[in-house]
Amino acid sequence: MKEKKTPLPALITIFGAKGDLTRRKLVPALYNLYTANHLPQTFAIFCIDYLANNEKDFKGELLAGINEFSRNGKAQQKQWEDFSANIFYIQGDFQKPETFADLKGRTENFDKQNKQRGARLFYFATAPRFIEIIAEGLYKNKICNSPAQHRIVVEKPFGTDLASAKKLNFFLGKRFEEKQVYRIDHYLGKEAVQNIMAFRFANYVFEPLWNNKFIDYIQISVAEEVGVEKRGGYYDSSGALRDMIQNHLLQLMCIVAMDCPASYKAELIRDAKVNVLKHVRRYSGRDVFKNVVRAQYTAGTVDDRPMKGYRQEEQVSPKSATETFVAAKFFVDNKRWKGVPFFLMTGKSLPRQASVITIQFKDSPNRIFKDDVESNRLVISIQPELEIGFLFESKVPGLEMNLKSVAMDFSYQQAYSQSVPEAYEALLLDVLEGDPTLFMRADQVDNAWKVVMPILDAWKKNPLKQLYFYKAGTWGPGEAMRLIKPYTDVLFQLPLSESHGS
Amino acid sequence: MKEKKTPLPALITIFGAKGDLTRRKLVPALYNLYTANHLPQTFAIFCIDYLANNEKDFKGELLAGINEFSRNGKAQQKQWEDFSANIFYIQGDFQKPETFADLKGRTENFDKQNKQRGARLFYFATAPRFIEIIAEGLYKNKICNSPAQHRIVVEKPFGTDLASAKKLNFFLGKRFEEKQVYRIDHYLGKEAVQNIMAFRFANYVFEPLWNNKFIDYIQISVAEEVGVEKRGGYYDSSGALRDMIQNHLLQLMCIVAMDCPASYKAELIRDAKVNVLKHVRRYSGRDVFKNVVRAQYTAGTVDDRPMKGYRQEEQVSPKSATETFVAAKFFVDNKRWKGVPFFLMTGKSLPRQASVITIQFKDSPNRIFKDDVESNRLVISIQPELEIGFLFESKVPGLEMNLKSVAMDFSYQQAYSQSVPEAYEALLLDVLEGDPTLFMRADQVDNAWKVVMPILDAWKKNPLKQLYFYKAGTWGPGEAMRLIKPYTDVLFQLPLSESHGS
Repeated sequence: MKEKKTPLPALITIFGAKGDLTRRKLVPALYNLYTANHLPQTFAIFCIDYLANNEKDFKGELLAGINEFSRNGKAQQKQWEDFSANIFYIQGDFQKPETFADLKGRTENFDKQNKQRGARLFYFATAPRFIEIIAEGLYKNKICNSPAQHRIVVEKPFGTDLASAKKLNFFLGKRFEEKQVYRIDHYLGKEAVQNIMAFRFANYVFEPLWNNKFIDYIQISVAEEVGVEKRGGYYDSSGALRDMIQNHLLQLMCIVAMDCPASYKAELIRDAKVNVLKHVRRYSGRDVFKNVVRAQYTAGTVDDRPMKGYRQEEQVSPKSATETFVAAKFFVDNKRWKGVPFFLMTGKSLPRQASVITIQFKDSPNRIFKDDVESNRLVISIQPELEIGFLFESKVPGLEMNLKSVAMDFSYQQAYSQSVPEAYEALLLDVLEGDPTLFMRADQVDNAWKVVMPILDAWKKNPLKQLYFYKAGTWGPGEAMRLIKPYTDVLFQLPLSESHGS
Repeated sequence: MKEKKTPLPALITIFGAKGDLTRRKLVPALYNLYTANHLPQTFAIFCIDYLANNEKDFKGELLAGINEFSRNGKAQQKQWEDFSANIFYIQGDFQKPETFADLKGRTENFDKQNKQRGARLFYFATAPRFIEIIAEGLYKNKICNSPAQHRIVVEKPFGTDLASAKKLNFFLGKRFEEKQVYRIDHYLGKEAVQNIMAFRFANYVFEPLWNNKFIDYIQISVAEEVGVEKRGGYYDSSGALRDMIQNHLLQLMCIVAMDCPASYKAELIRDAKVNVLKHVRRYSGRDVFKNVVRAQYTAGTVDDRPMKGYRQEEQVSPKSATETFVAAKFFVDNKRWKGVPFFLMTGKSLPRQASVITIQFKDSPNRIFKDDVESNRLVISIQPELEIGFLFESKVPGLEMNLKSVAMDFSYQQAYSQSVPEAYEALLLDVLEGDPTLFMRADQVDNAWKVVMPILDAWKKNPLKQLYFYKAGTWGPGEAMRLIKPYTDVLFQLPLSESHGS
């Protein structure tokens, strides 16, 4: 278990201070950590961006961000004033050496004032092209040179393919120790995702069933209601496989499929996850098209709002072959999972948002009831609802022995009155405390790329081959059904509490 | 599965028509079956008792009974009139031959009027001493002589010990075929009890865990808030072991511990249950006192009402050694259950009413979390709530990996709007349809007696040895704790929804 460290003064530097991530996620998360007394007594937040900015106006923007996006609603004036007194806007071009010279001076001042070397956290909330530039600036100026106390946080994408990811990891590895590098996949900080390990390994009843003898298939689906919005430029060079499957969905698969580590230590847990990725069957050639379905949305209607087709989106090529939908059937070829398909599904412009993990158990061998007995199903809902539901057969009350599937639910909202911490709160605190458990080690990133590379390669070679289309506001192309039959005919599971009204 | 038989005209005869059972249970159940169209088109209910009675007054009493005790509330006037037109009060002394001669004439008339031999159901809602007398009357007069269509229903107690039970079964066996004899244990007709088989055998995930490898202990507890009330005379010659353990609790144990029958056939299911009883370890001598704790309530307070001590109750001997509380530790010595204790607990004048089956799983072998991980528990609540709850470890929402036991619940009340049929409805319909699945075969009764006889014998030999006392309104004597430690320190489990408020 995580032990609370004696909190050092902490200096948090955010590169990309004017970006959406800072305003929507990072500052609201830091503010919530502050109000919950999770930040050290002494801290400062340096916010760097290249735009000129009046500090007061900038803080006003941050406050507006908290008021709009924080799970706890509007900030209290006194708390905000105390908190924001620690925020400093620094105008600086990441590409200019003086930016880092300036930062160096400020960081040293911070330590001097506190009469001890503090913790330093450098958050790269920037476009990927700045990662190496900023890293080099920090390195050359010896701003992030204490392996024990200085850390960088890098946002995905970690490269755009295996080669670039390796190159990036190599680059960072030359400048920092691996333990200084926190590659963030915010899915791993979600409460419901963190709970999966507790659920699997603190409960004796699940592990005996958690294998190919009892499990028929596993489905991990992340449905998004939104299209590419303003991210068309980035997205068109990326696509759903890179943007979602390579990171979020494969990481969820690791947590579901991993063996129990011998203890709750970051390296053992990350070893166990990498081990899953190493066992994922690699497809090549024809097998790619047989096991992975890609598609692109066309114009349609989501939730009564008309939606453009993907190729009509801003900054997207009208001839784009980039996929906005992927349905993939993976196998983990080890003793535990031999023969159990893992269906990983994601798509944009779908009818609604839902991230759900479904563990479908096999049929009971008992045949003493009528034929319509349904198999057991465990449904872990990550968003929007946080809940664990179990679907089982029960006698319908009445004078005949008729069976029906009913659900047992555990809902966070019902069980706990307080709201659940945002992923970024959990993850930022972990970085401050030096706990890398929920972050991606270099070899996790590499091995995730190894799973998707053959698919990317095959698609690159055949840009339009079996590129299917689905209308915005539908659950994806009919061809995806081919993949999941005969296991299921539901491409995206919903939380049990929604699919089974009481 | 049960198939609906073409419904023959049915003649239902209740011996003991003026008794509580008739008014509180049988007639409300028959009325509910009638209103739900489960009775045959043509039926008559003969109500026999030795008291003179005006039929109109008698029906008034029955109607009052429905209005007070039916799960569906007050009867509708038109329905009651139509239903009660089929009820006939017959004054008759069970000990006089003319009673049966009269009954014979009436039954034959019923068949004549309908121009076919109808089904006949003879319900012995009488004190046990009349069973043989009535059976003999039916037999001699050939009133119940069609093995396929004539049935008798006998209420417990089925004998007062093994010898008397065998004698009674032998007596009935000479006069009727076994398939005509329906020994009723109303616990088996309860919806939640019927559901246990569905739960165990229609869900693949439970059977693999349902054995000594994963289960630590099983607890079956039936707590009663009431004392002996007006039944002191009967109770003082019976006691909790005979009144509750020998029938209800051992039957629940059979359903929990049985193997899956090859098909849903009455004889296979009853075979599987008998097989459990045959494997129950028989105690003798000292082992009785080591494994079975008995006690008697003394004066106290239940739910703010002052309660007499048992020995002060009406018709109870002031020196009585009869137990009103039993806590027994049984073992089913077969491959599946070797080493798993089954704690059967029951008592009167306890703080509240609750019938609950607890399946306690063993500790997880994983030791990756803090030491305070609780083991999984499945809680099947039979009354007052009908629910299945599963207690499991989950991460407490928040920034640390802390675990807590939380509950998933399935509640009948929440899942189904209609009220659940009373046990007597289910059981009476089964008798009418000739389905003996939920009734006790002679060898079930015998084998249940075989389990308790050595205990009764040891107590008889040592009437006051280790007879403990507990104050009315407490959960039993401290000595019972000795028995259940180190497994648990809760003598009577409550439904999960009550013990774990949300």
